[in-house]
Amino acid sequence: MNGPIEFSVTAVEGDARTGRIVTPHGGVATPAFMPVGTRAAVKAMAPDELWSMGYTMVLANAYHLALRPGADLVHEMGGVARFMGFPGAVLTDSGGFQAMSLAKINSINEEGIHFRSHLDGTPLMLTPESAIDIQQQLGADIMMALDECTPYPAEHRRALKSLELTARWAERSLAARVSTTQALFGIIQGSIFEDLRKLSASQITSIPFDGYAAGGLSVGEPKAAMLEMAALSASMMPRDRPRYLMGVGTPSDLLAAIAMGFDMFDCVLPTRNARNGMAFTSVGPVSIKQAAHARDSTPLDPACECRPCRTHSRAYLRHLYLSGEILAARALTEHNLHFFASLMRQSRDAISSGNFAAFAKVLSGEMNPGDQVFDRS
Amino acid sequence: MNGPIEFSVTAVEGDARTGRIVTPHGGVATPAFMPVGTRAAVKAMAPDELWSMGYTMVLANAYHLALRPGADLVHEMGGVARFMGFPGAVLTDSGGFQAMSLAKINSINEEGIHFRSHLDGTPLMLTPESAIDIQQQLGADIMMALDECTPYPAEHRRALKSLELTARWAERSLAARVSTTQALFGIIQGSIFEDLRKLSASQITSIPFDGYAAGGLSVGEPKAAMLEMAALSASMMPRDRPRYLMGVGTPSDLLAAIAMGFDMFDCVLPTRNARNGMAFTSVGPVSIKQAAHARDSTPLDPACECRPCRTHSRAYLRHLYLSGEILAARALTEHNLHFFASLMRQSRDAISSGNFAAFAKVLSGEMNPGDQVFDRS
Repeated sequence: MNGPIEFSVTAVEGDARTGRIVTPHGGVATPAFMPVGTRAAVKAMAPDELWSMGYTMVLANAYHLALRPGADLVHEMGGVARFMGFPGAVLTDSGGFQAMSLAKINSINEEGIHFRSHLDGTPLMLTPESAIDIQQQLGADIMMALDECTPYPAEHRRALKSLELTARWAERSLAARVSTTQALFGIIQGSIFEDLRKLSASQITSIPFDGYAAGGLSVGEPKAAMLEMAALSASMMPRDRPRYLMGVGTPSDLLAAIAMGFDMFDCVLPTRNARNGMAFTSVGPVSIKQAAHARDSTPLDPACECRPCRTHSRAYLRHLYLSGEILAARALTEHNLHFFASLMRQSRDAISSGNFAAFAKVLSGEMNPGDQVFDRS
Repeated sequence: MNGPIEFSVTAVEGDARTGRIVTPHGGVATPAFMPVGTRAAVKAMAPDELWSMGYTMVLANAYHLALRPGADLVHEMGGVARFMGFPGAVLTDSGGFQAMSLAKINSINEEGIHFRSHLDGTPLMLTPESAIDIQQQLGADIMMALDECTPYPAEHRRALKSLELTARWAERSLAARVSTTQALFGIIQGSIFEDLRKLSASQITSIPFDGYAAGGLSVGEPKAAMLEMAALSASMMPRDRPRYLMGVGTPSDLLAAIAMGFDMFDCVLPTRNARNGMAFTSVGPVSIKQAAHARDSTPLDPACECRPCRTHSRAYLRHLYLSGEILAARALTEHNLHFFASLMRQSRDAISSGNFAAFAKVLSGEMNPGDQVFDRS
């Protein structure tokens, strides 16, 4: 490989493309959805189950792992993939998002983000350099530059200041990277202002990262604005590097983003919604707690071949959910992740055969009733 | 089959025996341990995982299922095994144990047990007849007669009154059974009084049940008393019917009870302790939360071939446990149930080859340091 990772596009249809990222921990077919394993575990799932579903890369979080169990411990255990027992690749987010989501316990200055541990109050200073150091210790295949994830809403002036800081941190992040086997991606900010997105995109893409991400989206802004800013970000990213849309999204969001030319995604929706009793299906969302399912002997999704759909009725899943059984979280998570894996596989196949636009149109129509009811919080 | 189930003994060694129970949902090799699936789910486990580990019969609870989702619903869904998606047999306990464990919300008279639902206060009258009716609706392969599980400690006079009631309820239970495909077991009480155990055993075994159980043990009495009363109960049970020791126990308890001639067991220990971070291993118990495991790259049990032991280090499992990850409960439950399944398989093989006494002695010695530290509550 020329760099830490290699990216090749094998087919394009409009702006959509399918291809392959080769990492030190194996290949990842794109477009790829990465299940979220914040604390080095995808909630309720065993690593071999993820692998069997076709997931070859998962996401973990540097901030969380630095606090517990500690990056040095993960390093000692052979890196995060080996620590988890996951046979594929791992991408780590830096902690920039936590600077926003855990805003009450941190402060930001030029140097970096001063956290107080959400676990026990211990101070943790995350700078662009220490975030790289942590991610290098974690052994991530793909590391993310520390960014300031601009909260929504943000005034133009505030968003500008934020993206300028992110650009300076991006330079410092790349300069801090020592590893020759771990890729590093830069993150575009700019809130939902067209001029700021463009400015941030031009700044970040001028830095020779191994890939580029659109950040600061799916943080509360209207969906139309999210899609517009995602498209704008994608259009300014180089074609020869992976493009990663962070924190998105629903199945129809994913189809829209694939059409824009994004290659990588992560989102808590399939896993978090599962634990809240919501399933993604080929005919829209199913809320398993509803009384309508009490005596329904059919599976969650008749079109699905996942283990829970082959084994359990809606009636049983509802009983498990109402009883607070761990198996409810397992079954719905497994189903939802199977659904997302299948969506990605079908998308890749459709792009390869030049049918993606038609495929996405039909599928978005079928799933449409549901997108708005999902908990995105 | 001559009755609802068939029981055959294929080898004996002293009082220990190995054999087979044939139920409408398949065969069960004995001695057999039944994982506890109170609410039609063994906590944290998928039914095919139980099956893969060699479990061919699990336990569910009539009282809990009658309250939620309702016995009629389970009946409509094809019975409890099908409802769970478990390809084997199911034994249901009647609710007699809950009359003791949920004593604050029930009262007992000659007619039966008057519960107030622990979920919402709804009244539920469990009589010997209604308990059979519920279990028939649930479609259990083996049903348990409603008993009064005598609390410990009990005065002699109180324990006598209790076992006499249990005997009258046993007669009523058998008279109420209509199904020709569902077996019914009677339960011996008598607290820890030798004369009362003998009296109860003679009363219960004079009723032509399909099998016999020793109840009212492992409810707080000293271990020596438990073992003594179990042995006394076993010695009075007919040889040609399955003998079931309810609610027991630790691995060395199980070996001791197998030596007494018991064939069937259930206990929450492997599943509950797993959720509390405790693992049964070939060298004694492991409390995964201990700091000693923080940087331990070895598996829970080097001698174990279960999925968690093949995949995860103690360091990772400790991290999962401290982080409250569902995967911690899954991994430790899977390991513990694998351990118990393996213990049963080895015991059956040892009896078949006439080596059980030696096997049990060696194994109890190896595991000994740990038995006392397990939470039995």
